Amino acid sequence: MKLIRFGEANKEKTGIIIGDVKYDTSAFGEDYNEQFFEHDGLNRLQKFLDENQSNLPEVPADVRLGSPVARPSKIICIGLNYADHAKETGAATPSEPVIFFKSTTSLTGPNDPIMIPKDSVKTDWEVELAIVISKKASYVEESEALDHVAGYVLHNDVSEREFQLERNGTWDKGKGCDTFAPLGPFLATPDEIDDINNMRLWLTVNGTKMQDGTTANLIFKIPFIISYVSKFMTLLPGDVISTGTPAGVGLGMNPQVFLKAGDVVELGIDGLGSSKQQLIAYAKN
Amino acid sequence: MKLIRFGEANKEKTGIIIGDVKYDTSAFGEDYNEQFFEHDGLNRLQKFLDENQSNLPEVPADVRLGSPVARPSKIICIGLNYADHAKETGAATPSEPVIFFKSTTSLTGPNDPIMIPKDSVKTDWEVELAIVISKKASYVEESEALDHVAGYVLHNDVSEREFQLERNGTWDKGKGCDTFAPLGPFLATPDEIDDINNMRLWLTVNGTKMQDGTTANLIFKIPFIISYVSKFMTLLPGDVISTGTPAGVGLGMNPQVFLKAGDVVELGIDGLGSSKQQLIAYAKN
Repeated sequence: MKLIRFGEANKEKTGIIIGDVKYDTSAFGEDYNEQFFEHDGLNRLQKFLDENQSNLPEVPADVRLGSPVARPSKIICIGLNYADHAKETGAATPSEPVIFFKSTTSLTGPNDPIMIPKDSVKTDWEVELAIVISKKASYVEESEALDHVAGYVLHNDVSEREFQLERNGTWDKGKGCDTFAPLGPFLATPDEIDDINNMRLWLTVNGTKMQDGTTANLIFKIPFIISYVSKFMTLLPGDVISTGTPAGVGLGMNPQVFLKAGDVVELGIDGLGSSKQQLIAYAKN
Repeated sequence: MKLIRFGEANKEKTGIIIGDVKYDTSAFGEDYNEQFFEHDGLNRLQKFLDENQSNLPEVPADVRLGSPVARPSKIICIGLNYADHAKETGAATPSEPVIFFKSTTSLTGPNDPIMIPKDSVKTDWEVELAIVISKKASYVEESEALDHVAGYVLHNDVSEREFQLERNGTWDKGKGCDTFAPLGPFLATPDEIDDINNMRLWLTVNGTKMQDGTTANLIFKIPFIISYVSKFMTLLPGDVISTGTPAGVGLGMNPQVFLKAGDVVELGIDGLGSSKQQLIAYAKN
């Protein structure tokens, strides 16, 4: 299944993509949130589709998409998880995963604008494969980790490098600004993916290819990541873990390149679709 | 008002403390959560009390207490915010606040046991004053920051120092283990506090005084902290910001001292009551 949430921000309805067509699954009666995943929602949704697929209302192809999962309890990120990216930032290849958080208030739709924070001069991009958790995970063995995966989703781990690295704190300062986590277009359940360890991921800025990597180069693979994170905190259904970005971020260039209002970022992962965000200047809402 | 949540874990009822007596406010019909604070819950609760106080059921004095706020969208912490604590850990006094996150799954009742994580050897204590946010805050001016405070609460920012400092990541790894955020006994609204900048805070381990400080020594004061954090992420109603710990943690001792199963930690802040946690060994639940 490919799950979407669509419509007005903060009032999204649930849907599904079949072939190239989007359908409204509001009649199922539940949002794609912690409770949905916790109570076997994916299997119940599949059963609902088996019985009702022919009656589902179609959704306009150009509808606004929201994050395909409703606000999770946490968005956890793995840093420096591609050797080429660690090298371009001047960091050593990590001996064990780097963990940081994005504030869940940074979550936004896959094609919504990215707002450059006030006084920001180093807003940067990061195409990433993100995992969505299906059930509570605490001290999970690597061999059982994939039983805890609801699916996979495209994520732009937008990052303000000055806030992240030069403002006297952990990385969290530069990762959780509003609109810094465009997620989607859709959540793909694991059966939709041929080989999670062999997916191409790419990102362009104003049409110029900046990142072009493959999940084959992940230093720490997905089962290890889930098992590892679950030793430090309990993962809840619907939680998001973003697995790191390959080389090609603005921070790693010489000279460095950062985003400005009007720029357009496009990104994609094989089998997980693509997303597109326009940068806008800070405006108090 | 002094707000409590009491009863079985994850099924807490809401209550209030008047004088020394706990009362059940379930009849108000709302949990003390994001929606409650967002929709002027404190004023509505006060009105409910004005009309119903004489009819509220009393709660046994020894009832189990939960966190006085239901799971927030985030628990943000300020690191090294007392000069004596920065010095004891060997860190420089920060030029601007250090920000990190605790996973919200670490939240627990004020007198619940603290579970030492599997393979932990450096579980440590930190008495802290925590702020609870009353309304959405983004780029808030320092002069308006206190308008965004629902109240104050005692917090033990339990920390695993090896996970935090020696495991190749940001501090987040050592801060968010299950039971690492005992919060309470109660949320005190600002009118209950004489001078937030002159509150004594203390902590004992097995009856021996370890921490004895005062909020007069906070490097960054509460209005500044709220304003500062709100420049990096949007604060939501119910969010918790913990303001840092004074000197006297196990990490800062010579030789270092860490907690073991059976140890008892007690802590308190003037006007915010006290809490008591027994340490227990890791057990898979």
